Amino acid sequence: MAKKNKLRIIPLGGLGEVGKNMMAYEYGNDVIVVDAGIMFPTNDMLGVDYIIPDYEYLKKKANRVLGLFITHGHEDHIGAIQHFIEDIPVPVYATPLTRGLIEAKLHRNGAQHKAQLKTIHAGETTRVGPFTLEYFHVNHSIPDCVGMGITTPAGLVVHMSDFKFDQTPVDGWPTDFAKLAEFANRGVDLLLSDSTNAERPGWTPSEAVIQPAFEKVFAEAKGRVIVATFASLISRVQQVADAAAKHGRKLAFAGPSMVDNVKIARKMKYLDIADDLIVSIEQAQQMQNHKVAIMCTGSQGEPSSIVGRLSAGTNRQFDLKDGDTIVLSSHPIPGNEETISKTINRLLRRGAKVIHDGIMPIHVSGHAAQEEQKLLINIVRPKHFMPIHGELRQLMRHAEHAQQLGVAPENTIVVENGQVVELVGKRVLRAERIPGDYIFVTGESIGDIDHDVMRERSQLARNGIMLIDISVDKRNGRVLHKPEIITRGFVSPEDAEALIPEVRNVVMRMIHEDGFESERDIISAVKSYLHQQTKRRPMVFVTLSKA
Amino acid sequence: MAKKNKLRIIPLGGLGEVGKNMMAYEYGNDVIVVDAGIMFPTNDMLGVDYIIPDYEYLKKKANRVLGLFITHGHEDHIGAIQHFIEDIPVPVYATPLTRGLIEAKLHRNGAQHKAQLKTIHAGETTRVGPFTLEYFHVNHSIPDCVGMGITTPAGLVVHMSDFKFDQTPVDGWPTDFAKLAEFANRGVDLLLSDSTNAERPGWTPSEAVIQPAFEKVFAEAKGRVIVATFASLISRVQQVADAAAKHGRKLAFAGPSMVDNVKIARKMKYLDIADDLIVSIEQAQQMQNHKVAIMCTGSQGEPSSIVGRLSAGTNRQFDLKDGDTIVLSSHPIPGNEETISKTINRLLRRGAKVIHDGIMPIHVSGHAAQEEQKLLINIVRPKHFMPIHGELRQLMRHAEHAQQLGVAPENTIVVENGQVVELVGKRVLRAERIPGDYIFVTGESIGDIDHDVMRERSQLARNGIMLIDISVDKRNGRVLHKPEIITRGFVSPEDAEALIPEVRNVVMRMIHEDGFESERDIISAVKSYLHQQTKRRPMVFVTLSKA
Repeated sequence: MAKKNKLRIIPLGGLGEVGKNMMAYEYGNDVIVVDAGIMFPTNDMLGVDYIIPDYEYLKKKANRVLGLFITHGHEDHIGAIQHFIEDIPVPVYATPLTRGLIEAKLHRNGAQHKAQLKTIHAGETTRVGPFTLEYFHVNHSIPDCVGMGITTPAGLVVHMSDFKFDQTPVDGWPTDFAKLAEFANRGVDLLLSDSTNAERPGWTPSEAVIQPAFEKVFAEAKGRVIVATFASLISRVQQVADAAAKHGRKLAFAGPSMVDNVKIARKMKYLDIADDLIVSIEQAQQMQNHKVAIMCTGSQGEPSSIVGRLSAGTNRQFDLKDGDTIVLSSHPIPGNEETISKTINRLLRRGAKVIHDGIMPIHVSGHAAQEEQKLLINIVRPKHFMPIHGELRQLMRHAEHAQQLGVAPENTIVVENGQVVELVGKRVLRAERIPGDYIFVTGESIGDIDHDVMRERSQLARNGIMLIDISVDKRNGRVLHKPEIITRGFVSPEDAEALIPEVRNVVMRMIHEDGFESERDIISAVKSYLHQQTKRRPMVFVTLSKA
Repeated sequence: MAKKNKLRIIPLGGLGEVGKNMMAYEYGNDVIVVDAGIMFPTNDMLGVDYIIPDYEYLKKKANRVLGLFITHGHEDHIGAIQHFIEDIPVPVYATPLTRGLIEAKLHRNGAQHKAQLKTIHAGETTRVGPFTLEYFHVNHSIPDCVGMGITTPAGLVVHMSDFKFDQTPVDGWPTDFAKLAEFANRGVDLLLSDSTNAERPGWTPSEAVIQPAFEKVFAEAKGRVIVATFASLISRVQQVADAAAKHGRKLAFAGPSMVDNVKIARKMKYLDIADDLIVSIEQAQQMQNHKVAIMCTGSQGEPSSIVGRLSAGTNRQFDLKDGDTIVLSSHPIPGNEETISKTINRLLRRGAKVIHDGIMPIHVSGHAAQEEQKLLINIVRPKHFMPIHGELRQLMRHAEHAQQLGVAPENTIVVENGQVVELVGKRVLRAERIPGDYIFVTGESIGDIDHDVMRERSQLARNGIMLIDISVDKRNGRVLHKPEIITRGFVSPEDAEALIPEVRNVVMRMIHEDGFESERDIISAVKSYLHQQTKRRPMVFVTLSKA
């Protein structure tokens, strides 16, 4: 019986935001998966391009997985699809724009033929195995985003996507409050809701509030206006296009993902931009500066992005010009603050005017703040509440708020990724914890870097290395020639010059006078000498050959 | 003539905040220096403990330097004194509390005998060579902080320290507005002012506004209250002590710098805490939890700090107990956001309640916001204005505001460290740029890590290393035994196991079939093989011996 009436809810992905990048629902023998996204590495994850959730648990049940259901087209929800469907080839369900963005991404990575994509729409219902999924429209910083009501014999779960309650969204399509109320009337056993802004009081402003700031920038700029934002922020593109049209500027797009996404969104009518407003970057270069606006990526200041390259003077397609105004239309993602600040300083040093969200309201969050989160709970009136899409600090805050609204503390469940939760007999319980962590992706390799490799990298990076090559005469054990010693990332060449002869002496003394059992003894003598001299501990390697 | 009536103003310290850590004033042959502080490394400065300004320019004029004048006792203003006076042994002028903090710091580093310290007080005047320094009290997040009016035959310069205008400071001693007005009446040729919060609108709240939040925390906490803040935030110590006294808790201090600073500040009457309020950590451990408050360092979540260790369960002196409330009474220093967030999550995971400034107003900035910065300019009415203590983005913002208040654009001068500014003939001009950068300090070594070493570290960290040891028979050039290959920070051991035999084949083929000129050829063959296989570029080292 237990198994029959039990829905297992499984957030995956290491210590990242809970259930953000991937969430599995398991009923009996059947599984559905919501979202397959990537995380970006923190500053201490050296040399990692991105991270995908560890879905080893699902691989073992690959033939029981009935589908992958995508809430919206952001990288942290679609970025791992390519990897997922290689391991678990199931249909991928997505709304039209989300599907378009997935196709473009797969195409850029040469994997377009691998996915079996199915289009869904807000308001529709899909039945797979014991699951009934009802999609409903929610606002977020990308159009065509859906939440899902998931019904099984165990009860009704409402899985909110990333969301905000925007009463005046750029595309004129507000969140489907009626559907949420309908769920409430049916009785919601468990609500899972976006905790990103659980520490932010009040309401997140509507996208509409930033239009006046853009108007002001476009009205006052004497030269070109270059607006950087996320390639997926389709509504921002509409706002910039509207401001450009109003102020007699043509608009060019730069950056492959930005160009792709605009093409898809225009084709699918999610963007309303007249053909004659758009010019190519090459055409824009030939026009008068005050007639030009450019939209590009790189608002997080990444050195390899267009804005990063503009700040360094290394962008190939176009460079800064006198009088340029750069608008960074985003908010720093936590951990990016330093990089963004450096980029802003570099742009200023190169003579650009820089507008960021500390100067003017040219960005708003795509996530519900506290009062919206509370409103959702009051509309849905769930029996149980599970905060997702946040780190522990946000989840616990969100849970506190739910309790203030009357959800019983014992019906509020805060877990981290890997902790299985069960909805059984109309109660929500903590089940086992499944193994699972981050999978690091670098270059073309997936998962061949683990935490041990990362620790070695951190050690290499903190102190550098010293390599010592020694040849000894096999007949008498005497050193044949001066040991060769090189260092990297340890001390400057001048200091190395002073230090290396001393290290040679340590090595020679060990071999000729003190004696040694193995390379280990030499390494440890050198290490202790270096620590005594420099208070640092580089990795030391010795190669010893006898001739 | 030019040299006689010329004051040279020289901000030192690489791309850090302008003039924050060190500023030199040069008139004729004579030099005075204001502050000698350290900077903390950004996340990309691998393995660096801290940074000091490059004062090579001053070393060459060491016998002309008349004194080092300290504005206040924060690390970024006093932390490099120890290094500075070794190179340039001059008297160090500081107010009583600042002097006490300097002495304690020198003592901790065994350098107390090296400094010739002189006590100054707000309201006093010091004459050295052509310089007349008039100290005036300003508010900041540490008591006994002074700004300086610096008069030479070239004119009057007002050098603000870090400051805020707190009308109800914890120590009851507001900024000396009368002195600022007196300078204004005399005519200020140049004002240098703190730009830290130039992007923050409005007024920085008084320290007094956080008292109610502390009262609430102390009233509601069922267990111990552990407050973490900067060791130098003396006024915060007073506020916590007051709250503890009011709510019947004893107070213990943890962390050597916190213990030292409290001892000094109490002895000098900058702190008013009754003897019987204070207990040792050991005594506190024996008391009932709700009778205990602890103040400690580590509010920035540094892994090696007390809070960092509490979050990891590795603090020796005391550990978390059930019901503990941890108050992080500071705001993340830019770049520390990730670390702090991880620490908060760990503390929550270990069962502590965590209060940070996103939850309750338990911290206020020590720096003037926009309206205070403007008020200062309106009080001082300087002829010229030079924003300091900020990165370019803050300086330019501050300069814009000064111009809005009527300072002529041509009288506003924005420079970065190393750019010499001259006050000559009552005009402020840009002079030459002197070389100067960061000096990295690691362990006991100063300056032996440069940007090249840092680049090597970053390369080691991104991709790891591979070492290949080859012995060939000198008679026939055949490889004597299987080349030994080890990797660090490159791939996991399992992947290395698969990759290494292939690399051996590449090496053997090169030696036995293709032939090679030097180790370089082997390295480049291996590198290109590894890149083809893994899309990564580890550093490859080859040692080749012939026997």
